[in-house]
Amino acid sequence: MQGIYLVTDQKACQGKPLESIVSDAVRAGVSCVQLREKQACTRLFLKTALDLMSILKPAKIPLIINDRVDIALAAKAAGVHLGQSDMPYEHARRLMGPGAIIGLSVETWEDVEKAQDLDVDYLGVSPVFSTPTKTDTKTPWGLYGLERIRGYSRHPLVAIGGINASNARKIIKAGADAIAVVSAICSAKDAFDATLQLVRLFEHSQQEKKS
Amino acid sequence: MQGIYLVTDQKACQGKPLESIVSDAVRAGVSCVQLREKQACTRLFLKTALDLMSILKPAKIPLIINDRVDIALAAKAAGVHLGQSDMPYEHARRLMGPGAIIGLSVETWEDVEKAQDLDVDYLGVSPVFSTPTKTDTKTPWGLYGLERIRGYSRHPLVAIGGINASNARKIIKAGADAIAVVSAICSAKDAFDATLQLVRLFEHSQQEKKS
Repeated sequence: MQGIYLVTDQKACQGKPLESIVSDAVRAGVSCVQLREKQACTRLFLKTALDLMSILKPAKIPLIINDRVDIALAAKAAGVHLGQSDMPYEHARRLMGPGAIIGLSVETWEDVEKAQDLDVDYLGVSPVFSTPTKTDTKTPWGLYGLERIRGYSRHPLVAIGGINASNARKIIKAGADAIAVVSAICSAKDAFDATLQLVRLFEHSQQEKKS
Repeated sequence: MQGIYLVTDQKACQGKPLESIVSDAVRAGVSCVQLREKQACTRLFLKTALDLMSILKPAKIPLIINDRVDIALAAKAAGVHLGQSDMPYEHARRLMGPGAIIGLSVETWEDVEKAQDLDVDYLGVSPVFSTPTKTDTKTPWGLYGLERIRGYSRHPLVAIGGINASNARKIIKAGADAIAVVSAICSAKDAFDATLQLVRLFEHSQQEKKS
């Protein structure tokens, strides 16, 4: 997992169709899209997943479903993202198969230690900074917390929470392999421009790290 | 599907542990248990499903999961019950396999007609009478509606909604193969006695129909 990782939020789209935002993000070089639907019924959730698959599959961008293994299986999505109150990893892996992408949110140091023995594909470091789009999260990790996880964990790290163009560089420097954003793309005036700016920032920061 | 079909509702249990109510219902001869959890997170939902499986599997009583195919698969439950805003039947069948029990709620005549071509294992005729435990349902079918569905459908019928010991007989006479109850068992002073009364009523009514 590397680059810019878009997490959807219908509210953050402020009335714009999610499909058009995702299309714009894909054209601008997003690496991965996670569909998060906390309110929709199963039928509508699946419909949205299938709609996004029709955009992402031709572009070879993985669709990750938040929490719901049933939606991921029905839509033939690339994987699931699990929070600490979602299905335990072992069950999800058994149902999704060895080839699926499974990400896991870590909100405490205990979560990070427990994840070390799991064959998850990445850790969602959540939240890096405080964020208005998710209010049920724990104390933000901050840059120091992210660096500490980087020093310990064997997994790729996707940082999420309060990330935008103004702080993305510091987060990549602190050890994030990918940066996940919600509002920075969903609520942007122009989703294409916003994504492109983040993608370029990511590439420049990677080059800085190498040199 | 035949006999007394218990649908769980944590609120209707009024603080009593669901496991003890289900154990009592099993001892008294319930035919099937459907776990319905509209509030719980995935992790808690799965935990409850696994707890109920440990009671139901040794008793050879099928556990049906409301809406969530992922929970059914993870808990190795016997099947799922689908409402009209849950996963479409075809997706659920593909994921659950040919041996799973799949029930489908019908709330309008159009639902009944559409279900005729599906290999569902039963129809949930919902609601037969108006009910306080589910407020998002359509106009009750009533006894006449149930008779009309019985005359048309090729599927077993499970009647649900406002059923208790005082009206169960009429519902069986009108064509229900099984009667589903929530409060009549979950909110009963004694779940064992309440189930036993319904089981006996069901058996007597079946004999009346035959003779």
